[in-house]
Amino acid sequence: MLESEETLPEAVDLSRHLSALARARTPSPLKNLQRYMNKPGLISMAGGTPNPMYFPFHTLSAEVLEKDAYPLELPAQSSSFSWFWRLFGSKSAERTTSFTIPKYPLKPDDINLAVSLQYSLATGMPQLSKVIREFTEKVYRPAYSNFQTLVHTGNTDGWGKCVFTLCNPGDGVLCSEWTYPSAMAGLRPYGVTPVPVGMDSQGMSSIDLRRVLFEWDPAANGGMARPHIIYTVPVGQNPTGATMGAIRKKEIYAICVEYDVVIVEDDPYYFLQQAAYVPKSERVKEAQVSGDETDFVASLAPSFLRFDYQGRVIRLDTFSKTVAPGSRLGWFTCNPMFAERLERQSEVSSQMPCGFGQAMVASLLLKWQYPGYVRWLRALHLQYQQRRDFMIDCLWDAFDLHASVATEGVQSGTVVYSARLKTLKGSLNEKGGVSTRGTVFSFVPPTSGMFLWFKLHLDAHPAVATVGYKQLELKLWMALLDADVMFSPGQMFSADEVVDETPGAGHFRVSFSMTDEKETKKAVEIFAAIMREFFTEF
Amino acid sequence: MLESEETLPEAVDLSRHLSALARARTPSPLKNLQRYMNKPGLISMAGGTPNPMYFPFHTLSAEVLEKDAYPLELPAQSSSFSWFWRLFGSKSAERTTSFTIPKYPLKPDDINLAVSLQYSLATGMPQLSKVIREFTEKVYRPAYSNFQTLVHTGNTDGWGKCVFTLCNPGDGVLCSEWTYPSAMAGLRPYGVTPVPVGMDSQGMSSIDLRRVLFEWDPAANGGMARPHIIYTVPVGQNPTGATMGAIRKKEIYAICVEYDVVIVEDDPYYFLQQAAYVPKSERVKEAQVSGDETDFVASLAPSFLRFDYQGRVIRLDTFSKTVAPGSRLGWFTCNPMFAERLERQSEVSSQMPCGFGQAMVASLLLKWQYPGYVRWLRALHLQYQQRRDFMIDCLWDAFDLHASVATEGVQSGTVVYSARLKTLKGSLNEKGGVSTRGTVFSFVPPTSGMFLWFKLHLDAHPAVATVGYKQLELKLWMALLDADVMFSPGQMFSADEVVDETPGAGHFRVSFSMTDEKETKKAVEIFAAIMREFFTEF
Repeated sequence: MLESEETLPEAVDLSRHLSALARARTPSPLKNLQRYMNKPGLISMAGGTPNPMYFPFHTLSAEVLEKDAYPLELPAQSSSFSWFWRLFGSKSAERTTSFTIPKYPLKPDDINLAVSLQYSLATGMPQLSKVIREFTEKVYRPAYSNFQTLVHTGNTDGWGKCVFTLCNPGDGVLCSEWTYPSAMAGLRPYGVTPVPVGMDSQGMSSIDLRRVLFEWDPAANGGMARPHIIYTVPVGQNPTGATMGAIRKKEIYAICVEYDVVIVEDDPYYFLQQAAYVPKSERVKEAQVSGDETDFVASLAPSFLRFDYQGRVIRLDTFSKTVAPGSRLGWFTCNPMFAERLERQSEVSSQMPCGFGQAMVASLLLKWQYPGYVRWLRALHLQYQQRRDFMIDCLWDAFDLHASVATEGVQSGTVVYSARLKTLKGSLNEKGGVSTRGTVFSFVPPTSGMFLWFKLHLDAHPAVATVGYKQLELKLWMALLDADVMFSPGQMFSADEVVDETPGAGHFRVSFSMTDEKETKKAVEIFAAIMREFFTEF
Repeated sequence: MLESEETLPEAVDLSRHLSALARARTPSPLKNLQRYMNKPGLISMAGGTPNPMYFPFHTLSAEVLEKDAYPLELPAQSSSFSWFWRLFGSKSAERTTSFTIPKYPLKPDDINLAVSLQYSLATGMPQLSKVIREFTEKVYRPAYSNFQTLVHTGNTDGWGKCVFTLCNPGDGVLCSEWTYPSAMAGLRPYGVTPVPVGMDSQGMSSIDLRRVLFEWDPAANGGMARPHIIYTVPVGQNPTGATMGAIRKKEIYAICVEYDVVIVEDDPYYFLQQAAYVPKSERVKEAQVSGDETDFVASLAPSFLRFDYQGRVIRLDTFSKTVAPGSRLGWFTCNPMFAERLERQSEVSSQMPCGFGQAMVASLLLKWQYPGYVRWLRALHLQYQQRRDFMIDCLWDAFDLHASVATEGVQSGTVVYSARLKTLKGSLNEKGGVSTRGTVFSFVPPTSGMFLWFKLHLDAHPAVATVGYKQLELKLWMALLDADVMFSPGQMFSADEVVDETPGAGHFRVSFSMTDEKETKKAVEIFAAIMREFFTEF
């Protein structure tokens, strides 16, 4: 691997990855004009810009949480952290600070509304770009120094722009067999098709990736050429919650070098990485983040950028999970050639991200500064860890859980928890049959993100042979919905269309991000009751 | 025309206008889930939504101008309105009011950050959608009642989505011969080509539109089928500043019915319509807006929506020119079928517009209310009118201007001002030759928008036969830039590529929106000096 002082080797020609349209697309005709705009003393009557005098916004102010509003240690047992949640649920207890953005700057570099709310280049506010560039350099340490960062309006937008820039109609995109459905829905408008790759507990399998590429036969794939793009959510994989470690990433990167594949790393959950789950009964230590900012950053799984000595990675970062989704703000990190094409594309679509959002997020980050933002992230991941722990604790209470090491499929290579229906006290409610005694669902405690991925063992269901597992999954989903609990049906997340005849399991994706303790507990109890009914009274 | 109580006739099948991809695209897989989200009592663990507890923004506040911060009457002469500008340039004199957006709502319908900064449907905040729908109904009065409005992130985004939804690669889009270059640059990534239509002083010529459609021969156009989309900026046409009246719009609409063409009406300058220019020497009355809100709205050129009895208009509105470009917020108004396809497209690209921007703009509009916003718009158009008047007054001072009625080309059908170089006092500086005595440029005072469109009479230039007018235009542009004045070179705005050999004129687009009186005056004086040099000392 190169040292990050070194620039990208010119020998690697990635231009062939651009779509025909991206190759043909000329720069925006406004580009040259805008370059002259900053000449001192220039009287510009060139732009189609309204006068900031007529922006009705005179100042914007925000009251924001202190960077250390959330603690770095949380008690091991949830009874007291329930109290903690209530504390933070009430507004009075929150420690805040504030800032005000004036219409006109007091000092030249001040963030101000006359500029933030005006048209700008698609690269957005320079103050924000600078923060983003420095953050990327410090946290992800890309393997080459002339990487570029470029704002976008969220990873969905970023991914759409990647597809448009890199894919031609008829292309395929490699993705995990279970994956984020909106990203796949976003391929269709471009005439591009998902090509699923098998997974294990670290996400995309390097073995299966190599198999798919090695065995690729256009004739067996309706004439489709071997795909040259991978879409991956390597941390807090959506929906499985898997985290891909450094070794797997290196393996995948090496295969991509071999087969000349570009990696799009969609990584919204990067800072929600969590310590391994410890069952409640064994959990004596408090949950905590040890060390300082540097230790925390070093403890995170490396980005693909870290290994990207050929510039074949486009990383998508977003403020959606660390600040707020309504920011509609994130950024690409990639080689200069891809960045230039993505910028051109922004000019004729989103243009610059919303100025209100840019000004607010940039002001927040400048207020907190880098160590402050990392402090915020350290506490944030602990919050989600506690939520995960509480949810799994509830499952322990409501089901008979058994831990074992899985050896195949998505769960392969890690500890899996198998859940059986609890034997009810008194035989009156107890039903016979295999179904109530065997595993009804299983899951791997996620090590990042905000989801549990339940594998529903529908082969234990009496009606599986006649109804099929796809329909059974939906019936169970509807039964839960009727009981006022909504999970996400697993078939939504399949990269291939789920066919009812396929033997296999059902799935649910369950988010532990939104519900409070009481709701989580209640939802799990309802789930247990509905599972009992479903497996015994169908 | 139908009364607007009537819904769209089903007999008109517009579905054939959808692109192959828009026809094939299936709804987002998240759609069904999100529909259940609002069930009362439901515990939802389905969404991938971060907890609003972890949005660092606790409150947002804005100090905004009062709706009547700008007056409805301005003095006829600029000497006193210079004072007026200074007044408003200083912050102390501005009358403001304020609002605060809390994290959690006090009443159910309150705008609040927990919702505004969260993920939402691509339709955005319901409070904003409601305001937009009502505004559209009152101001544009569409010809059918079941029209839909749908937010987008600015008209550039809106137009891009229209192209993607309506065009297949290889299609052509009808546009004015001089048009907004970014809109044309936005066609290229989709493999779509501009098809220019001749103009007169009202913008696109209905006579030439009919000619182009009637005479269309795919064989003479590289196999391209007759275009089925028009792109038009009917008010404050960019770059010419023309305003298209009701009769022209009806003519164009009728032709579109006959040839089955969809009209995309990109109308950012709608509220910058201005009274006819009166030369300074004849201007005795003060500039004013008479009547009330209803009179003002009734005085504006009608939107194509007003005549759209078949639902073949997609109107693009934006807050860029009336609030601020950084809002990155606007909306489509169109038939339900197109709206549904555009919403699906938003789901896999921009998603919802930025929540900071939506919350701020919605709060402003709810603060001002409909009459207040119209009050703001009434004063706004007067401000731009005064700027236009001042700029033309400066041209009177710096050149010999002569008014006449033009009979051909883009200026046809209205009063055109021809400018000659002033005869300098004393013969020492006076140069001989036709060039200094004839018209060196001419323009039609615009009746909306923020641009003057100068036609450069380069045929009067000594070097036109050897250099060509395209290069002459650029030389003049560079000479101005060297003298610290930047206009936009006209060739940027040509729908067709400008070829140097073509006989014709040069052009500049000159914006009067940004410069203050002193700068405008100085720029015009520099322009006059450079023109003299250019036409006599080349």
